[in-house]
Amino acid sequence: MSHTVRITGITVTPVAFRDPALLNAVGVHEPYALRAIVEVTTDAGPTGVGETYADEEHLARLATVSHALIGQDVFALNAILARTRAALGGSTGDDSHGLTGKITTGGTVDRVYSPFEVACLDIQGKILGRPVSDLLGGAVRDEVPFSAYLFYKWAAHPGHQPDSWGEALCPEQIVAQARTMVDRYGFTALKLKGGVFPPDQEADAIRALRTAFPHLPLRLDPNAAWTPETAVRIGAELDGVLEYLEDPTPGIAGMAVVAGEVPMPLATNMCVVGFDDVEDALRAGAVGIILSDHHYWGGLHRSKILSGICDTFGLGLSMHSNSHLGVSLAAMVHLAAATPNLTYACDTHWPWKDESEDVVRPGVLAFRNGSVAVPSTPGLGVELDHDALARLHEQYLACGLRNRDDTGYMRSIDPAYQALKPRW
Amino acid sequence: MSHTVRITGITVTPVAFRDPALLNAVGVHEPYALRAIVEVTTDAGPTGVGETYADEEHLARLATVSHALIGQDVFALNAILARTRAALGGSTGDDSHGLTGKITTGGTVDRVYSPFEVACLDIQGKILGRPVSDLLGGAVRDEVPFSAYLFYKWAAHPGHQPDSWGEALCPEQIVAQARTMVDRYGFTALKLKGGVFPPDQEADAIRALRTAFPHLPLRLDPNAAWTPETAVRIGAELDGVLEYLEDPTPGIAGMAVVAGEVPMPLATNMCVVGFDDVEDALRAGAVGIILSDHHYWGGLHRSKILSGICDTFGLGLSMHSNSHLGVSLAAMVHLAAATPNLTYACDTHWPWKDESEDVVRPGVLAFRNGSVAVPSTPGLGVELDHDALARLHEQYLACGLRNRDDTGYMRSIDPAYQALKPRW
Ligand SMILES: [Mg+2]
Ligand SMILES: [Mg+2]
Repeated sequence: MSHTVRITGITVTPVAFRDPALLNAVGVHEPYALRAIVEVTTDAGPTGVGETYADEEHLARLATVSHALIGQDVFALNAILARTRAALGGSTGDDSHGLTGKITTGGTVDRVYSPFEVACLDIQGKILGRPVSDLLGGAVRDEVPFSAYLFYKWAAHPGHQPDSWGEALCPEQIVAQARTMVDRYGFTALKLKGGVFPPDQEADAIRALRTAFPHLPLRLDPNAAWTPETAVRIGAELDGVLEYLEDPTPGIAGMAVVAGEVPMPLATNMCVVGFDDVEDALRAGAVGIILSDHHYWGGLHRSKILSGICDTFGLGLSMHSNSHLGVSLAAMVHLAAATPNLTYACDTHWPWKDESEDVVRPGVLAFRNGSVAVPSTPGLGVELDHDALARLHEQYLACGLRNRDDTGYMRSIDPAYQALKPRW
Repeated sequence: MSHTVRITGITVTPVAFRDPALLNAVGVHEPYALRAIVEVTTDAGPTGVGETYADEEHLARLATVSHALIGQDVFALNAILARTRAALGGSTGDDSHGLTGKITTGGTVDRVYSPFEVACLDIQGKILGRPVSDLLGGAVRDEVPFSAYLFYKWAAHPGHQPDSWGEALCPEQIVAQARTMVDRYGFTALKLKGGVFPPDQEADAIRALRTAFPHLPLRLDPNAAWTPETAVRIGAELDGVLEYLEDPTPGIAGMAVVAGEVPMPLATNMCVVGFDDVEDALRAGAVGIILSDHHYWGGLHRSKILSGICDTFGLGLSMHSNSHLGVSLAAMVHLAAATPNLTYACDTHWPWKDESEDVVRPGVLAFRNGSVAVPSTPGLGVELDHDALARLHEQYLACGLRNRDDTGYMRSIDPAYQALKPRW
């Protein structure tokens, strides 16, 4: 008979790590990015780790669910999801940071469930002696390509020392940033976070990137800062230049209008952010590519269901990223490696994180030619550094930030700032 | 580092087992049902088993793919699917027995891949010491409910001894058959295979079942023998009586017409038989319930993707069955147990199989109160009986049947018979 592996304890540790002054459609990244590290212990010995958001309301939900999962079998993922749902009791999240759409009850469950699922898969893999990718059908690629995630940015947070990247507020500076990123990491695709400057300026930046990097696929993500009319106009101008245009305008209806008029596919991580959004978007023809993200699509197995949906309905599949640490990168790599139809280079904020700041021991997750090799050791293949975890938790306590608020931070600098969607 | 478990050999053994003269919309079951048993051996010791169809063209495809899979890691399911697809080179199956719709290239790949995937999961489970249900997210139920699958039937195949079930050609005999089946197995739902007699007679049989079993859910499956008009008329008559009406009429367009007019949900295992059919059916609003079947939905993991699609699009999920042996029953039970939204009692032809004829050792798969307990031993939890396998293979060789042909068999008895879809 098989032996049950029961969860004996769950620890959720909020951490903070330094983040440059990256600009987006709703403001600017604060000096620290917040994440929560979820550690799961079992009666069989192996422990597992997951990584998720750390906003206060999310931390409260993680705490509630942690209690409900003690004693569960780490292989009983269906039951763990059901317990997560029951423990949350129909609560619904909000989109406090303005970069995703409305979050349904199901979406809230999927967000909270995700780090527990990843930690359980880490444990399963360790017990079974197999990498997590093998629990997802096996890696179909040895390494996972990522895109260079370019941001308009300030040279420094006000009152702080400049970071090593310098200012990027014009096409030339964006090209320089891209050059540094490609030189350092070898990325083979470029994505510009837009929605910051008037659309024509951002289109100029894209054209400058095209000139500087004639052969790299280019993407632009204005985070719904544009009207459908603006999106159609800029989309037409960038015909043949963009691999895809990401969330040019808010909402499924607006995206559908744009999708019917522009020559390139539209991608989204804003109007389709959970299973509840898929049918409406499909019926409207709003998107051609969904950016998956296991942090809000309910973990790795449920992200595979999303990949099956994309395959079934002829949609492309790419991968979204927030600011993240090594645990998330490892999970993203295993998932992407085991998802045959994930044919676009994935997003990652990795280069924006100081190399000295992480919760996993270095060495496993290195970029070569823009790709990360899939760990082949059991589980996720990363090891928590508890000293580093403690340091980043201390930094969390000291930094004073408790919820991501790019808009509020921007307003503290420019009181007249308003996050308008659409703005142009 | 994890240890690769490589496939060292694959054996495909066609078998035949006795089958009563069960009537359906395209003819009558032949005296023997055909299946193929797929055994996979590995360099790690454990072997795995799968079960599938045994028509000649399918056997040829299984042989082709078997050669292509030698040396593959049993955890590399994505790669095994890709190799299956490549080995088949775009060939497309036909619907030789008339009880499913058109089979696409993708559907053909999924049919051929399925028994290899199940055998690999059996091996994975044995190596990991976990039941297959644990590889699918864990069982959410300890036992899986099945429905009594009622058939109009002759007392005997012409020239053969009568079977123990006797004739069933009128409502009273169907009720008696249901009574026997419920008494013996404890089934808590009843399904009548229709499309055999004029629709009003079959509606009478359903009403007789309702009177005799006031509390059991009832289903009727005419296998597309009715016109949309007939389906709408009978559907209205059976308002409040049927849990669902299964494939009353051919094709997505016809089903959509009926779905808009009848009060009960329409189920299908004919107009949606693969991922390629899902989008058209959804856009047309043709069905409310999809009958999954891992034998043609590409195995257990891909059946979970189907379940995710049904969940995402608000469709119900039930389970289809052909005549099958114990390997398939075990796989069906693991899948159903690990599929939370599989909320209907599953179909099975199990009672129609002689208890003395199977390829697995008896004892694991018993019906109690209409349900089968989920095996908790590693892998599928069933053990091949190689003597029994050899006997059923001898029977396959001796019986002379090589392809299922209910219509041809019926014509050999009634030369005027024609399989008309729709007939009424
Ligand atoms: Mg985006
Ligand atoms: Mg049917």
